[in-house]
Amino acid sequence: AAVDKGVDFAQYFCTYGYLYHQKEMLCDKVRMDAYFNAIFKNKHHFLGKTVLDVGTGSGILAIWSAQAGARKVYAVEATKMSEHARALVKANNLQDVVEVIEGSIEDITLPEKVDVIISEWMGYFLLRESMFDSVICARDRWLKPTGVMYPSHASMWVAPIRSQLGEQKMNDYETSMEDWHYFLEDTETNYGVDMSVLTKSFSEEQEKYYLQTSLWNCLHPHQVIGNPSTVKEIDCLTATIKDISEVRSHITSSITICSSRLCGFGGWFDVHFRGRMEDLAQEEVELTTAPSVDGNTHWGQQVFLLYPPVSVNEGDNLNVSFSMTRSKENHRLLEVDLGCEIHQASGKHLQTLEKKFYID
Amino acid sequence: AAVDKGVDFAQYFCTYGYLYHQKEMLCDKVRMDAYFNAIFKNKHHFLGKTVLDVGTGSGILAIWSAQAGARKVYAVEATKMSEHARALVKANNLQDVVEVIEGSIEDITLPEKVDVIISEWMGYFLLRESMFDSVICARDRWLKPTGVMYPSHASMWVAPIRSQLGEQKMNDYETSMEDWHYFLEDTETNYGVDMSVLTKSFSEEQEKYYLQTSLWNCLHPHQVIGNPSTVKEIDCLTATIKDISEVRSHITSSITICSSRLCGFGGWFDVHFRGRMEDLAQEEVELTTAPSVDGNTHWGQQVFLLYPPVSVNEGDNLNVSFSMTRSKENHRLLEVDLGCEIHQASGKHLQTLEKKFYID
Ligand SMILES: Nc1ncnc2c1ncn2[C@@H]1O[C@H](CSCC[C@H](N)C(=O)O)[C@@H](O)[C@H]1O
Ligand SMILES: Nc1ncnc2c1ncn2[C@@H]1O[C@H](CSCC[C@H](N)C(=O)O)[C@@H](O)[C@H]1O
Repeated sequence: AAVDKGVDFAQYFCTYGYLYHQKEMLCDKVRMDAYFNAIFKNKHHFLGKTVLDVGTGSGILAIWSAQAGARKVYAVEATKMSEHARALVKANNLQDVVEVIEGSIEDITLPEKVDVIISEWMGYFLLRESMFDSVICARDRWLKPTGVMYPSHASMWVAPIRSQLGEQKMNDYETSMEDWHYFLEDTETNYGVDMSVLTKSFSEEQEKYYLQTSLWNCLHPHQVIGNPSTVKEIDCLTATIKDISEVRSHITSSITICSSRLCGFGGWFDVHFRGRMEDLAQEEVELTTAPSVDGNTHWGQQVFLLYPPVSVNEGDNLNVSFSMTRSKENHRLLEVDLGCEIHQASGKHLQTLEKKFYID
Repeated sequence: AAVDKGVDFAQYFCTYGYLYHQKEMLCDKVRMDAYFNAIFKNKHHFLGKTVLDVGTGSGILAIWSAQAGARKVYAVEATKMSEHARALVKANNLQDVVEVIEGSIEDITLPEKVDVIISEWMGYFLLRESMFDSVICARDRWLKPTGVMYPSHASMWVAPIRSQLGEQKMNDYETSMEDWHYFLEDTETNYGVDMSVLTKSFSEEQEKYYLQTSLWNCLHPHQVIGNPSTVKEIDCLTATIKDISEVRSHITSSITICSSRLCGFGGWFDVHFRGRMEDLAQEEVELTTAPSVDGNTHWGQQVFLLYPPVSVNEGDNLNVSFSMTRSKENHRLLEVDLGCEIHQASGKHLQTLEKKFYID
């Protein structure tokens, strides 16, 4: 499906043109520390090397790469943020090393291939925004055969959780439907039009909004009630667009907390900076967005609610089928189909839950 | 400037595809009563006539037109809402009169010219969304020479106001800038990058966001501290796109409250259903979005803040130059240049204030 560039700009890129938005990322300490350490604890990957920063935004990763000793850094940015990046490079006196190029990575050309591709391409639950497509494109065109990817690996995690959000959202949904019924009455009484034929569509619309849209949430580790499992592992050096445009996985998770409520699933990701097999990192760095007491990121976690909650016990096993595809209307958004079978520790098969979600 | 249809859909039409959004309009009692009365108190305009509803949404105005006795109603809607409109028409047994057509009014063809064009095309401060362009297009192509416009007239009002919003927004702005300075320090200390070169741009971005963007607000009549003046009058039967794509006006307003604070200006609109000169309404109806104690609309008023407030007194005169143009980036958004000279009742010329605003 061809993507209309104008639409993509209006829907996706536009927000990245604001310093305010770049600042939010620059204030994410977990994110910043991870990239900072990845670069400065592995200077051998940068010293005297050529680097491509895919989506440089404010220019931060390009600047660090230069500070770590890169010979040349190409910093490509699709939005007007490129102008700020250029100013920032100059103010830090790196204009001889960092070349800021305004344009889509898909459209621009570089004068040479590079030793390192660095990029912060991760969206909610890793793949929202589908920006890794652009990194793949950059890699296939501009990375030397011996080149290194920063980050080098990524994985997606899913775990059973407990949460009050289900009640809340169900409440919101019910309030909205009550309100709809008053509205129907009023419209009939005051304006002589019977709108009840729209009830089903309205209810579906509201259900989708309140109950089938995954929620950004900052989960506390205590809310995770069973073993997290990996639903996807990506080797950034070899992954193809086909590999990442669908995620299908069957996982099992056993409940680790006694007498709890299964309210849904949480999803998060981590990325790793390991260098490449023949040219390993001296110090491996990990950036995780897992539920954490004090290491939260702006990505938070995505919550997929199952309602009503199901009582579960330590040792119960969950068989989860997880499938994620891209939205047909917008290739940067995702749809998830979750299936969950609960097998009680006693051996009794309890229940099969199935639900579709939208990551919007 | 040619408009990219895909972008226009992504930015503008998309929200109208939700019943939730249509319902918000259908719950606006002032709006609903005005159109309802305009139609049913002027049945002679509809009885046995052909009607075009430009942007039918849920179909409500088309249905009323049919219920008022129209022979045929063409109900044109650009979004998938057309399907709900069609279902609603059927459920109200009007499928022989109302024909729902999915498409842009600019693109579709009708089998005949019509006697009445009805449309609810008004955006914030009347002209935001630029939907009246589409009504003009419909009128020029499909209205009979004797045809009637519903509504027939529109006007835009501006008045001096007092409000706490200025303090609030100035506070938000200042907090954001303080935060920025902490951010600069942290980034320098922790990550060795000096971002202070971006301070000016960040400050401008935040100023634009907090202080130069007009605000949706529900003003209380007491907040209006001087005479409202008309900055634009539109005759829907004759107005051209050129007429409405710019508003330039010099108005005067005298302060009607003793020892008050001029905090900015409020803007609103009203529309009138007067029929046409040769075919007048039997009962004229007005829909006003002026500040009101209990007749508020979902349009509210637009507030243009001047900060800091200026002390004014009863009898002081304001000379206001008001100019509104369309945003170059998005023809559905507006930009306002406001100039205000304050002449004290004592004869002393106090101050000239000038400011640019964005209606986003
Ligand atoms: N195909 C593409 N070509 C160029 N830039 C892109 C792109 N896709 C996304 N981007 C840009 O990539 C950035 C991702 S956000 C990360 C910004 C910066 N590297 C940092 O770590 O702080 C955004 O600024 C976005 O505009
Ligand atoms: N050029 C155009 N062609 C067709 N429909 C349009 C249009 N411009 C705007 N619209 C539609 O016009 C509607 C305006 S909102 C008003 C809806 C309805 N008439 C009511 O009064 O409740 C939206 O549904 C929007 O999608």
